[in-house]
Amino acid sequence: MFLVRYDVDGAAALGVLKDGAVFAIAELVPDAPDDMIALMQAKGTLFSRLRDAIASGEARGLPVETVKLLSPVERPGKFICLGLNYLEHVKEGGRDVPEFPTLFLRVQTSLLPPDGEIVAPVVSDKLDFEAELLVVIGKSGHNIPEYKALEHVFGYSAFNDGSIRDYQRRTTQWTAGKNFDATGPFGPAIVTADALPPGASGLSIRSRLNGEIMQDGNTADMMFSVARIIADISEIMTLEPGDLIATGTPSGVGFARKPPIFMKAGDLIEIEIEGMPVLANRVVTA
Amino acid sequence: MFLVRYDVDGAAALGVLKDGAVFAIAELVPDAPDDMIALMQAKGTLFSRLRDAIASGEARGLPVETVKLLSPVERPGKFICLGLNYLEHVKEGGRDVPEFPTLFLRVQTSLLPPDGEIVAPVVSDKLDFEAELLVVIGKSGHNIPEYKALEHVFGYSAFNDGSIRDYQRRTTQWTAGKNFDATGPFGPAIVTADALPPGASGLSIRSRLNGEIMQDGNTADMMFSVARIIADISEIMTLEPGDLIATGTPSGVGFARKPPIFMKAGDLIEIEIEGMPVLANRVVTA
Repeated sequence: MFLVRYDVDGAAALGVLKDGAVFAIAELVPDAPDDMIALMQAKGTLFSRLRDAIASGEARGLPVETVKLLSPVERPGKFICLGLNYLEHVKEGGRDVPEFPTLFLRVQTSLLPPDGEIVAPVVSDKLDFEAELLVVIGKSGHNIPEYKALEHVFGYSAFNDGSIRDYQRRTTQWTAGKNFDATGPFGPAIVTADALPPGASGLSIRSRLNGEIMQDGNTADMMFSVARIIADISEIMTLEPGDLIATGTPSGVGFARKPPIFMKAGDLIEIEIEGMPVLANRVVTA
Repeated sequence: MFLVRYDVDGAAALGVLKDGAVFAIAELVPDAPDDMIALMQAKGTLFSRLRDAIASGEARGLPVETVKLLSPVERPGKFICLGLNYLEHVKEGGRDVPEFPTLFLRVQTSLLPPDGEIVAPVVSDKLDFEAELLVVIGKSGHNIPEYKALEHVFGYSAFNDGSIRDYQRRTTQWTAGKNFDATGPFGPAIVTADALPPGASGLSIRSRLNGEIMQDGNTADMMFSVARIIADISEIMTLEPGDLIATGTPSGVGFARKPPIFMKAGDLIEIEIEGMPVLANRVVTA
Protein backbone atom coordinates (compact mmCIF):
# COMPACT_ATOMS: atom_id res chain seq x y z
CA MET A 1 0.00 0.00 0.00
CA PHE A 2 1.21 3.53 -0.85
CA LEU A 3 0.47 6.02 1.94
CA VAL A 4 0.67 9.78 1.36
CA ARG A 5 0.17 13.03 3.22
CA TYR A 6 -1.44 15.80 1.24
CA ASP A 7 -2.76 19.29 1.55
CA VAL A 8 -6.47 19.99 2.00
CA ASP A 9 -7.11 23.73 2.30
CA GLY A 10 -3.89 24.26 4.24
CA ALA A 11 -4.28 21.28 6.54
CA ALA A 12 -2.61 17.89 6.22
CA ALA A 13 -4.65 14.78 5.38
CA LEU A 14 -3.59 11.16 5.03
CA GLY A 15 -4.35 9.21 1.91
CA VAL A 16 -3.85 5.96 0.06
CA LEU A 17 -2.36 6.35 -3.43
CA LYS A 18 -3.68 3.70 -5.81
CA ASP A 19 -3.83 3.61 -9.60
CA GLY A 20 -3.08 7.32 -9.88
CA ALA A 21 -5.73 8.41 -7.39
CA VAL A 22 -5.49 9.61 -3.79
CA PHE A 23 -8.18 8.20 -1.47
CA ALA A 24 -8.75 10.08 1.80
CA ILE A 25 -8.10 7.75 4.70
CA ALA A 26 -10.56 9.69 6.87
CA GLU A 27 -13.30 8.77 4.37
CA LEU A 28 -12.21 5.16 3.90
CA VAL A 29 -11.98 4.41 7.64
CA PRO A 30 -13.38 7.29 9.70
CA ASP A 31 -11.82 6.12 12.99
CA ALA A 32 -8.28 5.88 11.53
CA PRO A 33 -5.56 8.10 13.07
CA ASP A 34 -5.09 11.42 11.26
CA ASP A 35 -1.33 11.51 11.90
CA MET A 36 1.14 9.40 9.92
CA ILE A 37 3.22 8.34 12.92
CA ALA A 38 0.09 7.29 14.81
CA LEU A 39 -1.11 5.46 11.70
CA MET A 40 2.15 3.49 11.56
CA GLN A 41 1.53 2.23 15.04
CA ALA A 42 -2.11 1.32 14.50
CA LYS A 43 -2.78 -2.26 15.49
CA GLY A 44 -5.22 -4.78 14.18
CA THR A 45 -7.18 -4.62 11.00
CA LEU A 46 -6.77 -1.00 9.94
CA PHE A 47 -4.80 -1.76 6.79
CA SER A 48 -7.11 -4.53 5.61
CA ARG A 49 -10.08 -2.22 6.24
CA LEU A 50 -8.40 0.44 4.09
CA ARG A 51 -7.85 -2.13 1.33
CA ASP A 52 -11.41 -3.40 1.54
CA ALA A 53 -12.83 0.12 1.46
CA ILE A 54 -10.95 0.92 -1.77
CA ALA A 55 -11.79 -2.48 -3.28
CA SER A 56 -15.49 -1.92 -2.61
CA GLY A 57 -15.43 0.67 -5.39
CA GLU A 58 -17.58 3.06 -3.39
CA ALA A 59 -14.76 5.45 -2.48
CA ARG A 60 -13.81 8.20 -4.89
CA GLY A 61 -10.17 9.21 -5.25
CA LEU A 62 -8.69 12.47 -6.45
CA PRO A 63 -6.32 12.34 -9.43
CA VAL A 64 -2.85 12.56 -7.86
CA GLU A 65 -1.88 15.34 -10.29
CA THR A 66 -4.50 17.61 -8.70
CA VAL A 67 -3.24 17.01 -5.16
CA LYS A 68 -0.38 18.80 -3.40
CA LEU A 69 1.65 16.09 -1.70
CA LEU A 70 3.34 16.85 1.62
CA SER A 71 6.31 15.12 3.25
CA PRO A 72 5.05 11.65 4.26
CA VAL A 73 6.54 12.22 7.73
CA GLU A 74 6.26 15.84 8.78
CA ARG A 75 9.04 16.30 11.33
CA PRO A 76 11.02 13.07 11.63
CA GLY A 77 12.67 12.72 15.03
CA LYS A 78 15.84 11.70 13.24
CA PHE A 79 16.95 11.73 9.65
CA ILE A 80 19.97 9.45 9.54
CA CYS A 81 21.98 8.92 6.36
CA LEU A 82 24.56 6.38 5.29
CA GLY A 83 27.43 7.21 3.02
CA LEU A 84 29.50 4.68 1.13
CA ASN A 85 27.06 1.79 0.96
CA TYR A 86 27.45 0.77 -2.69
CA LEU A 87 30.90 -0.47 -3.67
CA GLU A 88 31.02 1.24 -7.08
CA HIS A 89 30.10 4.57 -5.48
CA VAL A 90 32.84 4.15 -2.88
CA LYS A 91 35.31 3.61 -5.72
CA GLU A 92 34.11 6.57 -7.80
CA GLY A 93 34.63 8.84 -4.78
CA GLY A 94 38.10 7.46 -4.09
CA ARG A 95 37.12 6.33 -0.58
CA ASP A 96 38.00 3.23 1.45
CA VAL A 97 35.44 0.47 1.99
CA PRO A 98 34.04 0.93 5.52
CA GLU A 99 33.58 -1.88 8.04
CA PHE A 100 30.84 -0.02 9.90
CA PRO A 101 28.12 2.18 8.39
CA THR A 102 29.36 5.71 7.77
CA LEU A 103 26.66 7.89 9.33
CA PHE A 104 25.69 11.52 9.02
CA LEU A 105 22.52 13.43 9.82
CA ARG A 106 20.25 15.87 8.07
CA VAL A 107 18.24 18.66 9.70
CA GLN A 108 14.60 19.43 9.01
CA THR A 109 15.36 22.64 7.07
CA SER A 110 17.37 20.64 4.51
CA LEU A 111 14.39 18.44 3.58
CA LEU A 112 11.50 19.17 1.27
CA PRO A 113 8.19 17.59 0.36
CA PRO A 114 7.79 15.44 -2.75
CA ASP A 115 5.94 18.22 -4.58
CA GLY A 116 8.51 20.84 -3.50
CA GLU A 117 11.34 22.42 -5.45
CA ILE A 118 15.03 21.78 -4.80
CA VAL A 119 16.82 25.05 -4.12
CA ALA A 120 20.17 25.52 -5.86
CA PRO A 121 22.23 27.62 -3.45
CA VAL A 122 23.77 30.97 -4.36
CA VAL A 123 27.16 30.18 -2.82
CA SER A 124 27.94 27.05 -4.84
CA ASP A 125 27.31 25.55 -8.28
CA LYS A 126 28.11 22.01 -7.09
CA LEU A 127 24.57 20.74 -6.40
CA ASP A 128 24.57 16.97 -6.94
CA PHE A 129 21.86 14.27 -6.83
CA GLU A 130 21.92 10.93 -4.98
CA ALA A 131 19.18 8.33 -5.42
CA GLU A 132 18.55 6.49 -2.15
CA LEU A 133 16.20 3.97 -0.59
CA LEU A 134 14.70 5.46 2.58
CA VAL A 135 13.67 3.23 5.51
CA VAL A 136 10.72 4.34 7.64
CA ILE A 137 10.93 3.07 11.22
CA GLY A 138 7.57 2.08 12.68
CA LYS A 139 8.48 0.58 16.04
CA SER A 140 10.85 1.78 18.76
CA GLY A 141 13.93 -0.19 19.62
CA HIS A 142 17.44 -0.13 21.03
CA ASN A 143 20.11 -2.78 20.48
CA ILE A 144 17.90 -4.49 17.94
CA PRO A 145 19.40 -7.80 16.74
CA GLU A 146 19.78 -8.10 12.99
CA TYR A 147 17.40 -11.06 12.73
CA LYS A 148 14.61 -8.99 14.32
CA ALA A 149 15.45 -5.68 12.65
CA LEU A 150 12.90 -5.83 9.82
CA GLU A 151 10.10 -6.01 12.40
CA HIS A 152 10.92 -2.36 13.14
CA VAL A 153 10.41 -1.25 9.55
CA PHE A 154 7.01 0.20 8.70
CA GLY A 155 7.85 0.88 5.10
CA TYR A 156 10.11 2.47 2.54
CA SER A 157 10.30 5.58 0.42
CA ALA A 158 12.57 7.29 -2.09
CA PHE A 159 15.04 10.02 -1.17
CA ASN A 160 17.27 12.37 -3.11
CA ASP A 161 20.24 13.18 -0.87
CA GLY A 162 20.99 16.49 -2.58
CA SER A 163 24.61 17.38 -1.83
CA ILE A 164 26.70 20.51 -2.24
CA ARG A 165 30.00 18.86 -3.07
CA ASP A 166 32.44 21.69 -2.34
CA TYR A 167 30.93 22.26 1.12
CA GLN A 168 30.79 18.51 1.73
CA ARG A 169 34.57 18.32 1.36
CA ARG A 170 35.42 21.65 2.96
CA THR A 171 36.12 19.94 6.31
CA THR A 172 36.42 16.29 7.30
CA GLN A 173 32.73 16.21 8.24
CA TRP A 174 30.16 16.13 5.44
CA THR A 175 27.41 17.86 7.45
CA ALA A 176 27.63 21.26 5.74
CA GLY A 177 27.34 19.89 2.20
CA LYS A 178 24.44 17.66 3.20
CA ASN A 179 22.33 20.29 4.95
CA PHE A 180 21.68 23.18 2.61
CA ASP A 181 18.11 24.42 2.82
CA ALA A 182 15.61 22.49 0.67
CA THR A 183 18.03 20.09 -0.98
CA GLY A 184 16.66 16.73 0.22
CA PRO A 185 13.23 15.72 -1.12
CA PHE A 186 11.67 12.45 -0.03
CA GLY A 187 8.50 10.58 -0.90
CA PRO A 188 6.12 10.77 -2.61
CA ALA A 189 4.64 7.86 -0.61
CA ILE A 190 5.51 5.49 2.17
CA VAL A 191 5.34 2.05 0.60
CA THR A 192 4.37 -0.40 3.33
CA ALA A 193 6.92 -3.14 3.87
CA ASP A 194 4.50 -5.92 2.82
CA ALA A 195 4.45 -4.51 -0.71
CA LEU A 196 8.19 -5.04 -1.24
CA PRO A 197 10.69 -7.91 -0.86
CA PRO A 198 12.18 -8.39 2.64
CA GLY A 199 14.54 -5.51 3.43
CA ALA A 200 13.56 -3.92 0.09
CA SER A 201 16.43 -5.87 -1.42
CA GLY A 202 16.79 -6.58 -5.14
CA LEU A 203 15.05 -3.41 -6.35
CA SER A 204 16.38 -1.38 -9.23
CA ILE A 205 17.18 2.19 -8.16
CA ARG A 206 17.77 4.98 -10.64
CA SER A 207 18.15 8.70 -10.95
CA ARG A 208 17.23 10.54 -14.14
CA LEU A 209 18.28 14.11 -14.88
CA ASN A 210 16.07 15.75 -17.48
CA GLY A 211 15.06 12.27 -18.64
CA GLU A 212 18.59 10.87 -18.95
CA ILE A 213 19.58 8.00 -16.66
CA MET A 214 22.43 9.04 -14.34
CA GLN A 215 22.47 6.27 -11.72
CA ASP A 216 21.29 2.75 -12.40
CA GLY A 217 21.84 0.43 -9.46
CA ASN A 218 20.15 -2.26 -7.45
CA THR A 219 19.47 -2.29 -3.71
CA ALA A 220 20.86 -5.84 -3.62
CA ASP A 221 24.29 -4.20 -4.00
CA MET A 222 24.13 -2.39 -0.67
CA MET A 223 27.10 -3.50 1.45
CA PHE A 224 25.11 -2.96 4.65
CA SER A 225 21.60 -4.42 4.31
CA VAL A 226 18.57 -2.68 5.80
CA ALA A 227 18.54 -5.21 8.67
CA ARG A 228 22.25 -4.75 9.36
CA ILE A 229 21.93 -0.95 9.26
CA ILE A 230 19.11 -1.01 11.81
CA ALA A 231 21.07 -3.35 14.07
CA ASP A 232 24.20 -1.19 13.89
CA ILE A 233 22.45 2.16 14.37
CA SER A 234 20.29 0.91 17.22
CA GLU A 235 23.45 -0.11 19.08
CA ILE A 236 24.08 3.65 19.29
CA MET A 237 20.70 5.32 19.43
CA THR A 238 17.14 4.35 20.21
CA LEU A 239 15.10 4.27 17.03
CA GLU A 240 11.58 5.69 17.24
CA PRO A 241 8.50 5.59 15.00
CA GLY A 242 8.86 8.11 12.20
CA ASP A 243 12.66 8.03 12.23
CA LEU A 244 14.02 7.86 8.70
CA ILE A 245 17.19 6.17 7.49
CA ALA A 246 18.65 6.82 4.05
CA THR A 247 20.69 3.86 2.92
CA GLY A 248 23.32 5.35 0.61
CA THR A 249 23.53 5.89 -3.12
CA PRO A 250 24.80 3.80 -6.05
CA SER A 251 27.46 5.01 -8.50
CA GLY A 252 26.80 7.51 -11.24
CA VAL A 253 26.48 10.70 -9.19
CA GLY A 254 27.28 13.98 -10.88
CA PHE A 255 30.62 14.96 -9.35
CA ALA A 256 32.27 11.66 -10.31
CA ARG A 257 31.21 11.78 -13.98
CA LYS A 258 33.63 12.86 -16.69
CA PRO A 259 32.96 15.67 -17.25
CA PRO A 260 31.11 16.33 -13.93
CA ILE A 261 27.39 17.11 -14.10
CA PHE A 262 25.68 19.33 -11.54
CA MET A 263 22.05 20.38 -11.22
CA LYS A 264 20.93 23.89 -12.10
CA ALA A 265 17.69 25.86 -12.08
CA GLY A 266 15.09 24.39 -14.41
CA ASP A 267 16.39 20.83 -14.20
CA LEU A 268 14.06 17.93 -13.47
CA ILE A 269 15.55 15.24 -11.27
CA GLU A 270 13.72 11.95 -10.75
CA ILE A 271 14.43 9.10 -8.35
CA GLU A 272 12.81 5.82 -9.33
CA ILE A 273 12.91 2.74 -7.16
CA GLU A 274 11.23 -0.43 -8.41
CA GLY A 275 7.80 -0.93 -6.87
CA MET A 276 7.47 2.68 -5.71
CA PRO A 277 6.02 5.85 -7.18
CA VAL A 278 8.63 8.19 -8.71
CA LEU A 279 10.06 11.11 -6.73
CA ALA A 280 10.34 14.00 -9.19
CA ASN A 281 11.53 17.52 -8.34
CA ARG A 282 12.36 20.67 -10.24
CA VAL A 283 15.40 22.73 -9.32
CA VAL A 284 15.01 26.47 -8.71
CA THR A 285 17.41 29.22 -7.69
CA ALA A 286 17.41 30.56 -4.13
CA MET B 1 18.54 36.56 33.58
CA PHE B 2 18.65 32.77 33.99
CA LEU B 3 15.63 31.04 32.43
CA VAL B 4 14.75 27.44 33.23
CA ARG B 5 12.14 24.83 32.38
CA TYR B 6 11.07 22.61 35.24
CA ASP B 7 8.64 19.89 36.12
CA VAL B 8 5.40 20.64 37.94
CA ASP B 9 3.40 17.46 38.48
CA GLY B 10 4.50 16.03 35.15
CA ALA B 11 3.98 19.21 33.15
CA ALA B 12 6.64 21.71 32.08
CA ALA B 13 6.72 25.21 33.54
CA LEU B 14 9.01 28.13 32.79
CA GLY B 15 10.92 29.85 35.55
CA VAL B 16 13.52 32.44 36.40
CA LEU B 17 16.46 31.13 38.45
CA LYS B 18 17.80 33.78 40.82
CA ASP B 19 19.87 33.47 44.00
CA GLY B 20 19.22 29.73 44.23
CA ALA B 21 15.47 29.97 43.81
CA VAL B 22 13.17 29.21 40.88
CA PHE B 23 10.36 31.75 40.35
CA ALA B 24 7.41 30.59 38.24
CA ILE B 25 7.09 32.87 35.22
CA ALA B 26 3.34 32.21 35.09
CA GLU B 27 3.05 33.76 38.55
CA LEU B 28 5.44 36.65 37.92
CA VAL B 29 3.75 37.69 34.65
CA PRO B 30 0.51 35.80 34.09
CA ASP B 31 0.23 36.69 30.39
CA ALA B 32 3.76 35.47 29.56
CA PRO B 33 4.09 32.62 27.01
CA ASP B 34 4.27 29.16 28.62
CA ASP B 35 6.65 27.81 25.98
CA MET B 36 10.38 28.64 25.94
CA ILE B 37 10.59 29.20 22.19
CA ALA B 38 7.58 31.54 22.30
CA LEU B 39 9.11 33.30 25.31
CA MET B 40 12.32 33.92 23.34
CA GLN B 41 10.33 35.72 20.69
CA ALA B 42 8.28 37.83 23.09
CA LYS B 43 8.50 41.50 22.21
CA GLY B 44 8.36 44.54 24.40
CA THR B 45 8.67 44.74 28.14
CA LEU B 46 8.27 41.10 29.19
CA PHE B 47 11.78 40.71 30.54
CA SER B 48 11.74 43.96 32.49
CA ARG B 49 8.36 43.00 33.92
CA LEU B 50 9.84 39.67 35.05
CA ARG B 51 12.75 41.50 36.68
CA ASP B 52 10.46 43.99 38.38
CA ALA B 53 8.18 41.24 39.68
CA ILE B 54 11.10 39.45 41.33
CA ALA B 55 12.59 42.70 42.65
CA SER B 56 9.26 43.60 44.27
CA GLY B 57 9.96 40.87 46.81
CA GLU B 58 6.35 39.65 46.66
CA ALA B 59 7.05 36.54 44.60
CA ARG B 60 8.14 33.38 46.36
CA GLY B 61 10.66 31.10 44.69
CA LEU B 62 11.27 27.38 45.20
CA PRO B 63 14.75 26.30 46.29
CA VAL B 64 16.36 25.04 43.05
CA GLU B 65 17.44 21.83 44.81
CA THR B 66 13.78 20.87 45.26
CA VAL B 67 12.94 21.38 41.60
CA LYS B 68 13.40 18.90 38.73
CA LEU B 69 14.92 20.89 35.90
CA LEU B 70 14.01 19.96 32.31
CA SER B 71 15.90 20.68 29.11
CA PRO B 72 15.66 24.46 28.61
CA VAL B 73 14.59 23.82 24.99
CA GLU B 74 12.47 20.70 24.71
CA ARG B 75 12.91 19.57 21.13
CA PRO B 76 15.36 21.87 19.38
CA GLY B 77 14.77 22.01 15.62
CA LYS B 78 18.52 21.60 15.16
CA PHE B 79 21.36 20.75 17.47
CA ILE B 80 24.49 21.75 15.56
CA CYS B 81 27.97 21.13 16.96
CA LEU B 82 31.40 22.43 16.06
CA GLY B 83 34.50 20.35 16.37
CA LEU B 84 38.02 21.73 16.42
CA ASN B 85 37.37 25.27 17.62
CA TYR B 86 40.09 25.63 20.27
CA LEU B 87 43.65 25.41 18.96
CA GLU B 88 45.07 23.39 21.85
CA HIS B 89 42.25 20.82 21.48
CA VAL B 90 42.95 20.54 17.74
CA LYS B 91 46.59 19.81 18.59
CA GLU B 92 45.81 17.25 21.32
CA GLY B 93 43.65 15.32 18.83
CA GLY B 94 46.31 15.43 16.11
CA ARG B 95 44.00 17.25 13.69
CA ASP B 96 44.63 20.04 11.18
CA VAL B 97 43.43 23.58 11.87
CA PRO B 98 40.24 24.07 9.84
CA GLU B 99 39.47 27.13 7.73
CA PHE B 100 35.72 26.63 7.98
CA PRO B 101 33.77 25.39 11.02
CA THR B 102 33.77 21.61 11.24
CA LEU B 103 30.11 20.73 11.76
CA PHE B 104 28.27 17.71 12.99
CA LEU B 105 24.77 17.17 14.36
CA ARG B 106 23.20 15.53 17.37
CA VAL B 107 19.78 13.87 17.50
CA GLN B 108 17.22 14.39 20.25
CA THR B 109 17.71 10.92 21.76
CA SER B 110 21.37 11.74 22.46
CA LEU B 111 20.49 14.73 24.64
CA LEU B 112 19.40 14.83 28.27
CA PRO B 113 18.04 17.39 30.70
CA PRO B 114 20.31 19.15 33.21
CA ASP B 115 18.96 17.03 36.07
CA GLY B 116 19.30 13.82 34.06
CA GLU B 117 21.93 11.09 34.19
CA ILE B 118 24.51 10.43 31.51
CA VAL B 119 24.28 6.84 30.31
CA ALA B 120 27.58 4.99 29.89
CA PRO B 121 26.97 2.59 26.99
CA VAL B 122 27.40 -1.16 27.26
CA VAL B 123 29.31 -1.49 24.00
CA SER B 124 32.19 0.89 24.83
CA ASP B 125 34.22 2.10 27.80
CA LYS B 126 35.41 5.23 25.95
CA LEU B 127 32.85 7.75 27.27
CA ASP B 128 34.50 11.18 27.26
CA PHE B 129 33.43 14.68 28.40
CA GLU B 130 33.62 17.95 26.46
CA ALA B 131 32.79 21.32 28.07
CA GLU B 132 31.13 23.61 25.55
CA LEU B 133 29.44 26.97 25.32
CA LEU B 134 25.98 26.52 23.77
CA VAL B 135 24.37 29.29 21.70
CA VAL B 136 20.56 29.58 21.76
CA ILE B 137 19.15 31.10 18.57
CA GLY B 138 16.20 33.43 19.19
CA LYS B 139 15.51 34.87 15.76
CA SER B 140 15.27 33.23 12.33
CA GLY B 141 17.77 34.03 9.65
CA HIS B 142 19.54 32.88 6.51
CA ASN B 143 22.78 34.31 5.12
CA ILE B 144 23.21 36.38 8.26
CA PRO B 145 26.19 38.76 7.99
CA GLU B 146 28.72 38.47 10.80
CA TYR B 147 28.16 42.02 12.03
CA LYS B 148 24.46 41.30 12.56
CA ALA B 149 24.84 37.75 13.83
CA LEU B 150 24.62 38.46 17.55
CA GLU B 151 21.14 39.95 17.04
CA HIS B 152 20.01 36.38 16.38
CA VAL B 153 21.27 35.09 19.74
CA PHE B 154 18.72 34.87 22.51
CA GLY B 155 21.14 33.53 25.08
CA TYR B 156 23.68 30.92 26.05
CA SER B 157 23.91 27.74 28.03
CA ALA B 158 26.40 25.04 29.00
CA PHE B 159 26.71 21.73 27.17
CA ASN B 160 28.61 18.53 27.75
CA ASP B 161 29.24 16.97 24.33
CA GLY B 162 29.57 13.44 25.69
CA SER B 163 31.50 11.40 23.13
CA ILE B 164 32.15 7.69 22.65
CA ARG B 165 35.65 7.94 21.25
CA ASP B 166 36.03 4.52 19.61
CA TYR B 167 32.75 4.94 17.73
CA GLN B 168 33.65 8.54 16.84
CA ARG B 169 36.72 7.31 14.99
CA ARG B 170 35.24 4.12 13.60
CA THR B 171 34.49 5.82 10.26
CA THR B 172 35.47 9.21 8.85
CA GLN B 173 32.23 10.73 10.18
CA TRP B 174 31.95 11.40 13.92
CA THR B 175 28.15 11.03 14.04
CA ALA B 176 28.06 7.60 15.70
CA GLY B 177 30.33 8.56 18.60
CA LYS B 178 28.42 11.79 19.16
CA ASN B 179 24.93 10.32 19.24
CA PHE B 180 24.73 7.61 21.85
CA ASP B 181 21.52 7.77 23.86
CA ALA B 182 21.58 10.22 26.80
CA THR B 183 25.17 11.37 26.47
CA GLY B 184 24.71 15.11 25.91
CA PRO B 185 23.27 17.12 28.82
CA PHE B 186 22.70 20.85 28.43
CA GLY B 187 21.52 23.60 30.72
CA PRO B 188 20.66 24.09 33.49
CA ALA B 189 19.50 27.54 32.37
CA ILE B 190 19.41 29.75 29.32
CA VAL B 191 21.42 32.81 30.28
CA THR B 192 20.03 35.75 28.34
CA ALA B 193 22.60 37.44 26.12
CA ASP B 194 22.42 40.74 28.02
CA ALA B 195 23.87 39.04 31.10
CA LEU B 196 27.14 38.12 29.33
CA PRO B 197 29.80 39.92 27.27
CA PRO B 198 29.08 40.24 23.52
CA GLY B 199 29.34 36.82 21.88
CA ALA B 200 29.94 35.30 25.35
CA SER B 201 33.63 35.89 24.72
CA GLY B 202 36.26 35.98 27.45
CA LEU B 203 34.52 33.53 29.80
CA SER B 204 36.39 30.83 31.63
CA ILE B 205 35.10 27.36 30.73
CA ARG B 206 35.93 24.28 32.74
CA SER B 207 35.04 20.67 33.22
CA ARG B 208 35.51 18.93 36.54
CA LEU B 209 35.41 15.16 36.96
CA ASN B 210 34.66 14.12 40.54
CA GLY B 211 35.84 17.56 41.66
CA GLU B 212 39.11 17.55 39.72
CA ILE B 213 39.60 20.13 36.97
CA MET B 214 40.01 18.42 33.58
CA GLN B 215 39.55 21.26 31.10
CA ASP B 216 40.34 24.88 31.92
CA GLY B 217 39.92 27.16 28.93
CA ASN B 218 38.50 30.50 27.93
CA THR B 219 35.87 31.21 25.28
CA ALA B 220 38.14 34.00 24.00
CA ASP B 221 40.29 31.22 22.54
CA MET B 222 37.62 29.99 20.13
CA MET B 223 39.03 30.19 16.60
CA PHE B 224 35.54 30.78 15.17
CA SER B 225 33.66 33.36 17.26
CA VAL B 226 29.94 33.03 17.97
CA ALA B 227 29.21 35.71 15.37
CA ARG B 228 31.39 34.04 12.75
CA ILE B 229 29.84 30.61 13.46
CA ILE B 230 26.33 31.99 12.98
CA ALA B 231 27.35 33.71 9.75
CA ASP B 232 28.99 30.57 8.37
CA ILE B 233 26.22 28.15 9.37
CA SER B 234 23.45 30.43 8.12
CA GLU B 235 25.08 30.44 4.69
CA ILE B 236 24.09 26.76 4.61
CA MET B 237 20.90 26.45 6.61
CA THR B 238 18.18 28.74 7.88
CA LEU B 239 18.50 29.17 11.63
CA GLU B 240 15.26 29.15 13.62
CA PRO B 241 14.29 30.11 17.18
CA GLY B 242 15.24 27.31 19.56
CA ASP B 243 18.06 26.02 17.36
CA LEU B 244 21.13 25.26 19.45
CA ILE B 245 24.78 25.54 18.42
CA ALA B 246 27.57 23.99 20.47
CA THR B 247 30.80 25.87 19.88
CA GLY B 248 33.53 23.28 20.46
CA THR B 249 35.60 22.26 23.44
CA PRO B 250 38.95 23.38 24.87
CA SER B 251 41.88 21.02 25.49
CA GLY B 252 42.04 18.63 28.40
CA VAL B 253 39.50 16.04 27.27
CA GLY B 254 39.87 12.52 28.58
CA PHE B 255 41.09 10.58 25.54
CA ALA B 256 44.06 12.93 25.00
CA ARG B 257 45.30 12.76 28.61
CA LYS B 258 48.22 10.55 29.55
CA PRO B 259 47.04 8.14 30.72
CA PRO B 260 43.56 8.59 29.16
CA ILE B 261 40.62 9.18 31.50
CA PHE B 262 37.10 8.06 30.65
CA MET B 263 33.86 8.41 32.58
CA LYS B 264 32.24 5.47 34.33
CA ALA B 265 29.16 4.82 36.41
CA GLY B 266 29.09 6.83 39.61
CA ASP B 267 31.21 9.70 38.27
CA LEU B 268 30.10 13.31 38.68
CA ILE B 269 30.93 15.52 35.70
CA GLU B 270 30.47 19.29 35.94
CA ILE B 271 30.66 21.95 33.25
CA GLU B 272 31.21 25.45 34.59
CA ILE B 273 31.17 28.52 32.40
CA GLU B 274 31.78 31.91 34.00
CA GLY B 275 28.56 33.79 34.63
CA MET B 276 26.35 30.70 34.30
CA PRO B 277 24.96 28.12 36.69
CA VAL B 278 26.91 24.85 36.74
CA LEU B 279 25.79 21.86 34.66
CA ALA B 280 26.36 18.79 36.84
CA ASN B 281 25.48 15.21 35.88
CA ARG B 282 26.02 11.78 37.31
CA VAL B 283 27.01 8.88 35.08
CA VAL B 284 25.03 5.64 35.25
CA THR B 285 25.24 2.34 33.38
CA ALA B 286 22.74 1.54 30.64
